Amino acid sequence: MHGYDKPMTNILIVNPNTTASMTATIAEVARAVAASGTEILAVTSAMGPASIEGFYDEAFAVPGLIQALQNAPDADAAIIACFDDTGLDAARSAAPYPVVGICEAALVTAGQIAKRIGIVTTLPRSIVPLEELVRRYGFAERAMVTACNVPVLDLEKPGSGARDKLEAEIVRALDRGADAIVLGCAGMADLAQALSTKFEVPVVDGVAAAVKQAEALAALKLKTSRRGAYASPGAKAYSGILQGFAPRA
Amino acid sequence: MHGYDKPMTNILIVNPNTTASMTATIAEVARAVAASGTEILAVTSAMGPASIEGFYDEAFAVPGLIQALQNAPDADAAIIACFDDTGLDAARSAAPYPVVGICEAALVTAGQIAKRIGIVTTLPRSIVPLEELVRRYGFAERAMVTACNVPVLDLEKPGSGARDKLEAEIVRALDRGADAIVLGCAGMADLAQALSTKFEVPVVDGVAAAVKQAEALAALKLKTSRRGAYASPGAKAYSGILQGFAPRA
Amino acid sequence: MHGYDKPMTNILIVNPNTTASMTATIAEVARAVAASGTEILAVTSAMGPASIEGFYDEAFAVPGLIQALQNAPDADAAIIACFDDTGLDAARSAAPYPVVGICEAALVTAGQIAKRIGIVTTLPRSIVPLEELVRRYGFAERAMVTACNVPVLDLEKPGSGARDKLEAEIVRALDRGADAIVLGCAGMADLAQALSTKFEVPVVDGVAAAVKQAEALAALKLKTSRRGAYASPGAKAYSGILQGFAPRA
Amino acid sequence: MHGYDKPMTNILIVNPNTTASMTATIAEVARAVAASGTEILAVTSAMGPASIEGFYDEAFAVPGLIQALQNAPDADAAIIACFDDTGLDAARSAAPYPVVGICEAALVTAGQIAKRIGIVTTLPRSIVPLEELVRRYGFAERAMVTACNVPVLDLEKPGSGARDKLEAEIVRALDRGADAIVLGCAGMADLAQALSTKFEVPVVDGVAAAVKQAEALAALKLKTSRRGAYASPGAKAYSGILQGFAPRA
Amino acid sequence: MHGYDKPMTNILIVNPNTTASMTATIAEVARAVAASGTEILAVTSAMGPASIEGFYDEAFAVPGLIQALQNAPDADAAIIACFDDTGLDAARSAAPYPVVGICEAALVTAGQIAKRIGIVTTLPRSIVPLEELVRRYGFAERAMVTACNVPVLDLEKPGSGARDKLEAEIVRALDRGADAIVLGCAGMADLAQALSTKFEVPVVDGVAAAVKQAEALAALKLKTSRRGAYASPGAKAYSGILQGFAPRA
Amino acid sequence: MHGYDKPMTNILIVNPNTTASMTATIAEVARAVAASGTEILAVTSAMGPASIEGFYDEAFAVPGLIQALQNAPDADAAIIACFDDTGLDAARSAAPYPVVGICEAALVTAGQIAKRIGIVTTLPRSIVPLEELVRRYGFAERAMVTACNVPVLDLEKPGSGARDKLEAEIVRALDRGADAIVLGCAGMADLAQALSTKFEVPVVDGVAAAVKQAEALAALKLKTSRRGAYASPGAKAYSGILQGFAPRA
Repeated sequence: MHGYDKPMTNILIVNPNTTASMTATIAEVARAVAASGTEILAVTSAMGPASIEGFYDEAFAVPGLIQALQNAPDADAAIIACFDDTGLDAARSAAPYPVVGICEAALVTAGQIAKRIGIVTTLPRSIVPLEELVRRYGFAERAMVTACNVPVLDLEKPGSGARDKLEAEIVRALDRGADAIVLGCAGMADLAQALSTKFEVPVVDGVAAAVKQAEALAALKLKTSRRGAYASPGAKAYSGILQGFAPRA
Repeated sequence: MHGYDKPMTNILIVNPNTTASMTATIAEVARAVAASGTEILAVTSAMGPASIEGFYDEAFAVPGLIQALQNAPDADAAIIACFDDTGLDAARSAAPYPVVGICEAALVTAGQIAKRIGIVTTLPRSIVPLEELVRRYGFAERAMVTACNVPVLDLEKPGSGARDKLEAEIVRALDRGADAIVLGCAGMADLAQALSTKFEVPVVDGVAAAVKQAEALAALKLKTSRRGAYASPGAKAYSGILQGFAPRA
Repeated sequence: MHGYDKPMTNILIVNPNTTASMTATIAEVARAVAASGTEILAVTSAMGPASIEGFYDEAFAVPGLIQALQNAPDADAAIIACFDDTGLDAARSAAPYPVVGICEAALVTAGQIAKRIGIVTTLPRSIVPLEELVRRYGFAERAMVTACNVPVLDLEKPGSGARDKLEAEIVRALDRGADAIVLGCAGMADLAQALSTKFEVPVVDGVAAAVKQAEALAALKLKTSRRGAYASPGAKAYSGILQGFAPRA
Repeated sequence: MHGYDKPMTNILIVNPNTTASMTATIAEVARAVAASGTEILAVTSAMGPASIEGFYDEAFAVPGLIQALQNAPDADAAIIACFDDTGLDAARSAAPYPVVGICEAALVTAGQIAKRIGIVTTLPRSIVPLEELVRRYGFAERAMVTACNVPVLDLEKPGSGARDKLEAEIVRALDRGADAIVLGCAGMADLAQALSTKFEVPVVDGVAAAVKQAEALAALKLKTSRRGAYASPGAKAYSGILQGFAPRA
Repeated sequence: MHGYDKPMTNILIVNPNTTASMTATIAEVARAVAASGTEILAVTSAMGPASIEGFYDEAFAVPGLIQALQNAPDADAAIIACFDDTGLDAARSAAPYPVVGICEAALVTAGQIAKRIGIVTTLPRSIVPLEELVRRYGFAERAMVTACNVPVLDLEKPGSGARDKLEAEIVRALDRGADAIVLGCAGMADLAQALSTKFEVPVVDGVAAAVKQAEALAALKLKTSRRGAYASPGAKAYSGILQGFAPRA
Repeated sequence: MHGYDKPMTNILIVNPNTTASMTATIAEVARAVAASGTEILAVTSAMGPASIEGFYDEAFAVPGLIQALQNAPDADAAIIACFDDTGLDAARSAAPYPVVGICEAALVTAGQIAKRIGIVTTLPRSIVPLEELVRRYGFAERAMVTACNVPVLDLEKPGSGARDKLEAEIVRALDRGADAIVLGCAGMADLAQALSTKFEVPVVDGVAAAVKQAEALAALKLKTSRRGAYASPGAKAYSGILQGFAPRA
């Protein structure tokens, strides 16, 4: 048997919003797919928005995310558990280990089992930000983004009708040619298996997909390149309430 | 004569880094091109990085930028004076007036007087972030980004050799087919005219270009659309040192 | 107060079709948004088609347009007031001042206040020509073109039902995800404000947008680059009825 | 034997510049590749520029081109023998038979025998116009445009050094990965065979390629679609020296 | 009269599926459009699938196709008569004469008479493979692929309802903006003329289009470039039942 | 500890060329990165080319590849160990488990740790086929393909100079802006670590990357979608030496 004596792989999952119940769901999904030998550390952001819906919330989620990464310097890889891949580029520039975004992870996973992908997210205001990610990740010709018009935190509320709206939007995506569905919010992570069974197509949840990508990067001993855009931040002064984030030499 | 009785237009320029001397340069350039009837209010960010070089600095410049916008609710338009268009989408979502990015302003201006554009920025690590902006703004087939390898704050230091390196890079861009040059850093704003004279091509500075775009949007009474991705942030709790930024109902 | 002693800026607007009543509408819209200090000179083409609908009319509108530019050598900037941006590249090659197209001006303006743009033009035959412009200007991923099936000159006829058809098409564009509307014909210039109020989204008219872009280029003292595709036409013989247009040394 | 009793196919070739010696070269090349059963009618434009170099000349070549088409209503197909595909869209809208552009014909031909195409044109100012055609025809990822810096009419002048400059540019294109060469000017039409022999790669001349595309469209009895952008021009008044071009009902 | 003494052009058409009745239809269509002086040799593949529907069938059709090409070393050009352009790149690498794909031929033909193209194919599983071809050939912005949900061999069966389904899909394509129709299966080759008459738009069949492209390449004496991706296969050993296909030195 | 009781994951690696020594290298690399709990079954194709260099070899490698997949119906996932991703679409259509291509796996892995990727392959004739894959996988704007001009089987021959040529090409790729290197041939799999150390950038080998992607898909219990282009091949007759590959009902 191979790899018998490999040490544990420590994967940090940061929920970049401050809602701890959502972190719990995420952690459960992550642990269910983790390899033996992977330890999952799930952390809730200590500052910023209670949910991330659109560009403004996204911007204010980044400091808490970076802080969570800085508090876990010994991880082997990290995951940002928000489908906007909030702060992913900044995180990659700063963390000493690889960082995985759940949107990117879901897309590269779905892309290996299907040609056309339907991404179903929560609010309409997230469609364009996700379309911009989709384009950046090279899926412009393969993935289509739609919204089921459910606020993020309603996903956890029984009686909100969230599940029905999500399913109706999946039906529409399949009708328009999707071969696989990607769930466009970390808060939907626990629904993937049931939806896949119901609709008889692959349904990819970004949290689970990201755990496997993080394990992959860690096992391959790959680190973020420091040669170009992800060069380590140069040492300089930061002012005000953010001064603690100043990069050191 | 038209427009005789038009009231003053107040344009807020935020330097999203904390270096006040750079704000002074920016303000001077802005005032030189402002229309009669335009009042320029130039503000230095009160928190965050001393200069913005790459993804990490960029993320931590956003709260200070937003704060500066919130402190000026009566402006008619605002400009973000960093060539990364730092926080532009968040700013547009939040501000009650239109917000202009100097990269976008420079490109749309240069695009009306030339077919192929050479953007010369400071550090190599900024090339990819700017290429991503260029693509987002629709100039992928028309603009090329290069770096002269000068740190942002060296632009202000006599004897740093910054000017020579910048000119050498402009020569290379013209050799490779650029018809016009865009200066890829707010700290270069005062050089546009001299470089245009020297190289006999249009040289566009984003700060000056942005002043005219901001005046345009204000005069046309256009405001950021609230229909899609720029919907006003929904009311919700923010935690920790960022709680003051929570959107209100 | 800044810019107090700036001289007048003279902006030439050419209506490249020969219908003078349309020029009057255009001039009125232009003057309403012009800065104090801007003088608008609106000119009707002296030769060519009465309205420009499709590729054929477009080709025959160019000589009249160029003649109008040549008759106004002292302008500070010019505007071509047809949404096809008829003859824009030829005009830029020939005119000693910058030339603005109303389609390009409308798109770069709308692009600074919205992510997704719905362009509503007149006849279906104009959809593809405008889609080709949209692509050339870098808005292929952001703008969608539709037609309300109204001939250009019907826009001026009370009782033609033009306004209703236009409004119905705007509704469809918004339903399909547009955040802002661009009016795809100079003959619609006077409707922007009323439509914006009615539909509660930004509605951008190219004539007004172009006035501000022309003022911007003039104020920035930017001229069309002569380095590449816009090099001044070389001196050579022209024959026949067009011989007067031959470039001189 | 098939097609024995097929009638003659009449192909009109219009040289849209007014230089008759160039028309003669074009006609000779065309006749050399024409099928038995094809009659070539080569016509020199009666008005406009002596050579077409850049956007301005191009615009003024269109009326003469259209006139030539209108003078030959009984052709089975027509060819526009300028590599800018001058006026192609207007011509297709107006002519009762299919119209072929030599740039488009050369590209679709070269694209069936090679993956990467080097287009070598005359003056640098033509690079961007041709790049825009290349993109419109779908060859952006496959074709690269360069210029050998030879004015069009120098191609006919012995001792101008034109041939050497052209060959040097072909060498550069092959070094940069081209598998086939397309000659980017109708005035180079007679050189294709010799250059192909010398460089041992396919060298495609647009005039010859266009003859075969025109024969193909005529044999297939395909006509320009009137459903969309190529709808016949609507009847309307044209003014001034262009009034004779007004579309009739 | 030109070309009087030109020798016969021999065009090989390979039906890469093994259904001989389909080859007969294809041959008839080909002969109807062939020039006098063209000899059509239509061959049915001797091994592989009875019809080609999707990626798997496609892969197993290639050896039979290559064998058919190798059996006809003296042809002047060849055509692969399956709309997937099955094995086109391998065929071009191997054959001593140019090879034409019916999808590519149909698109470049339709692209010269229309701006927007509707491709109607058989089964939904072929949509994505054809979309990938469309993109490779540069028609991503101009052509749209849909399926009429008819298995290939049903096209030959009276009473299968195939014709009605095909016509209904053409109607949908026209409604969505197509100016011309391309028939997306060699088995539809005989329907082009009747459908064009019925719908009053150009309807392009790839088999007929390919005959004319093959004649064009042969007449122009163009051969596949051996410089890049189409370099002749290097001599090496092949094993097992495929050993006869090993390239020789 | 999580996943303690998970059963073994069986991953089939097919070397689609017939050179067993290369399979041995591939197997060793695969086992070195496999998780504990993963069993690697490495198989050499039993028919077809000894090495895969260009379109022709590629086509004849597919039957042997499919046969190898059909011989291992109980695998949990499979890998095609040729950087052309030979037969990937056919394999996905046919196999009852997910199939991973090493080119796609390398790109999605490298794309999570770097922005700009340099792919170094063997022969120049492979550049275009790989560029077409790169585009299909959405990396056109991020990855650049070059060749070190070494035949595949020379990679195994000491004294061939292959290593020096490969390193020289890596240097060129880094100079042109690559942040990470992808090795463009399965025969280079064992060199990744040494090259990464030497050049101080991430160097990604597709075989190792594919093992982790295959483990990921297996762990996530994702299977290839049967809804669209990857629908199971319909039952039909196959003729000749390929009749054994006919899909069954």
